[in-house]
Amino acid sequence: MKLQGNKIEIRAKYKLNRQTLPILYTPGVAELSKKIAQSKKRVYDLTWKKNSVAIVSDGSAVLGLGNLGPEAALPVMEGKAVLFKELAGVDAVPIMLATQDTEKIIETAKNIAPGFGGINLEDISAPRCFEVEKRLIKELNIPVFHDDQHGTAIAVLAGLVNALKVVKKNISSVRIVISGAGAAGTSVTKLLTKYGAKNIIVFDSQGSLCCNCERSAKGVKREIACATNNHEYIRDLGKALSGADVFVGVSAPNLLQAKDIARMNKGAIVFAMSNPIPEISYPEAKKGGAAVIATGRSDFPNQINNALVFPGLFRGALDSRTKNISDKIKIKAALAIAGLVKNPKSDRIVPEVLDKKVVKAVAKVFVSGR
Amino acid sequence: MKLQGNKIEIRAKYKLNRQTLPILYTPGVAELSKKIAQSKKRVYDLTWKKNSVAIVSDGSAVLGLGNLGPEAALPVMEGKAVLFKELAGVDAVPIMLATQDTEKIIETAKNIAPGFGGINLEDISAPRCFEVEKRLIKELNIPVFHDDQHGTAIAVLAGLVNALKVVKKNISSVRIVISGAGAAGTSVTKLLTKYGAKNIIVFDSQGSLCCNCERSAKGVKREIACATNNHEYIRDLGKALSGADVFVGVSAPNLLQAKDIARMNKGAIVFAMSNPIPEISYPEAKKGGAAVIATGRSDFPNQINNALVFPGLFRGALDSRTKNISDKIKIKAALAIAGLVKNPKSDRIVPEVLDKKVVKAVAKVFVSGR
Repeated sequence: MKLQGNKIEIRAKYKLNRQTLPILYTPGVAELSKKIAQSKKRVYDLTWKKNSVAIVSDGSAVLGLGNLGPEAALPVMEGKAVLFKELAGVDAVPIMLATQDTEKIIETAKNIAPGFGGINLEDISAPRCFEVEKRLIKELNIPVFHDDQHGTAIAVLAGLVNALKVVKKNISSVRIVISGAGAAGTSVTKLLTKYGAKNIIVFDSQGSLCCNCERSAKGVKREIACATNNHEYIRDLGKALSGADVFVGVSAPNLLQAKDIARMNKGAIVFAMSNPIPEISYPEAKKGGAAVIATGRSDFPNQINNALVFPGLFRGALDSRTKNISDKIKIKAALAIAGLVKNPKSDRIVPEVLDKKVVKAVAKVFVSGR
Repeated sequence: MKLQGNKIEIRAKYKLNRQTLPILYTPGVAELSKKIAQSKKRVYDLTWKKNSVAIVSDGSAVLGLGNLGPEAALPVMEGKAVLFKELAGVDAVPIMLATQDTEKIIETAKNIAPGFGGINLEDISAPRCFEVEKRLIKELNIPVFHDDQHGTAIAVLAGLVNALKVVKKNISSVRIVISGAGAAGTSVTKLLTKYGAKNIIVFDSQGSLCCNCERSAKGVKREIACATNNHEYIRDLGKALSGADVFVGVSAPNLLQAKDIARMNKGAIVFAMSNPIPEISYPEAKKGGAAVIATGRSDFPNQINNALVFPGLFRGALDSRTKNISDKIKIKAALAIAGLVKNPKSDRIVPEVLDKKVVKAVAKVFVSGR
């Protein structure tokens, strides 16, 4: 396949000819406008709002590549739009922002909301992304979901549920080390805690986040530091892995070696999801003796990717007109994804991204989950 | 044809499968992002920006229906998007604004500009539309075009050029009465003046706009009052038609009767374009003795509609990367449309909206017109 540049386009659902012109354009559209003016709710059944999502990004955290700006982020959003459509039939439109100011992002997203049924925030860097999402959820009447946070968290939880089955361990007793305290790391930590994890140490590039210790974390970092493991500051990620059961990497390439994994407990679970280059390569983690290994890549077993999550999540939210995507729904979505793998094995803990059953299973969560 | 609600959708240009997934999504998109980060201009050939237009509307002047709000305006914008795509291959996305504040409209349009190759302002009421367009043209580096103003003006000029041929009169010597001093009326007046009209009287609902007379018009209305006919204030539109050669209505339904048209000079030209109900019906204008009659409707001869203009105009602006759509280009576009009718007759002064030659002729203006 040769990419011809753009990956998405607008398509008219009806052919234009002398008969359809007055229906598709004036005067026909006037009738629809009048109906919606009489009852605003009808915008859902008379326009694409029932099926449209704005993918809003300022390009400040493009994949693992950093602050490349809105133009450079557009190919990623087009790719997401392809997955939205092909996997879940959702019409997703990239909205690339010329501002990286928190308040202006919020205001712009609010100002463009009337034409969309939902907002997928994407590649907006922490900590601004937390405030942007919180405020938009509060101030808009359509679902708002920051995929880098919760899509990742749901996918990780789905994988972890099955990985724990493989190694026969329990979420409440495992020691978990998370590398990355940005959008993804924060949300992963919070969701795993909600699901019952009791012992989590989170690292950023400066070492572990600890609550009452020599290193004082601030804001959201302090929040997750104090909500999880009570420990002394640890500088070295490898050292923290000593006696750990689970490693989740949502941070940076090549942070670990086989010898670090070898320090983990027996039945070690390693999710190295930095994209495209993981914290430790699949073969290297294997060499270190990990029992279950997952990455974000499609060229090794166990691809943990938010593509397992966002298409079905928005399909379900749109169809059920659910505004609030609660933690309860997130956990149900993770369990629905995990449940599609009947007999989890070390090289099969999550379904494939292209498995059509994934979207259906995730979307169904909304019907029963409200 | 039965309309199923939404008229447009997003389409993926490539099929999603195991082979294409890593190209269409991560890691493939990362390569495109890096290229654009190195050279921002490449966003044009690597994304849909080369072919995408945001149709931005606050729903404050929906067709002739008034301030129905952004949700009710969405069906109109979807209809426009259908015409954009089917006639000119342009990917147009409705952006419905939750604000009707001039500064906030400007800021929002600027904030979403990076992902689009052009902005079509639509159904934003006067006088805010003038400031919005002026500022966006100045502050953005993509073409910005308020279709209600200039699309209408170009279509009117195209029709008038041929109508004048039919009645064998000259633009510089005809007396023109324009009903409507909003977005369309203002732009029609300005463009006809640029093209050589010397004698124009413009009416709003309160009577004629005059420059130095008992009724003092303000702002843009004063500007067009003083640029055109120097006359005493006239309250009655019908009275002003006495001795006029051309009537252009872009105002409200049923303002005139056959007897008003009968007061016009021989070879009267009547463009009654209020939509969907014209200032005077086609049969009534005929009864009044008009030589050439046009409306905005498809069920009578001579449909003058901006659909003749905007698809080709954006096609040309996008393909030629023209930022400024100058008056020179507007006049050339009108002449290109008029030129498609080889032998203008009273019942054929403009080509049909669905005539494929229209878009080509208008778009070509940019290649030669810069």
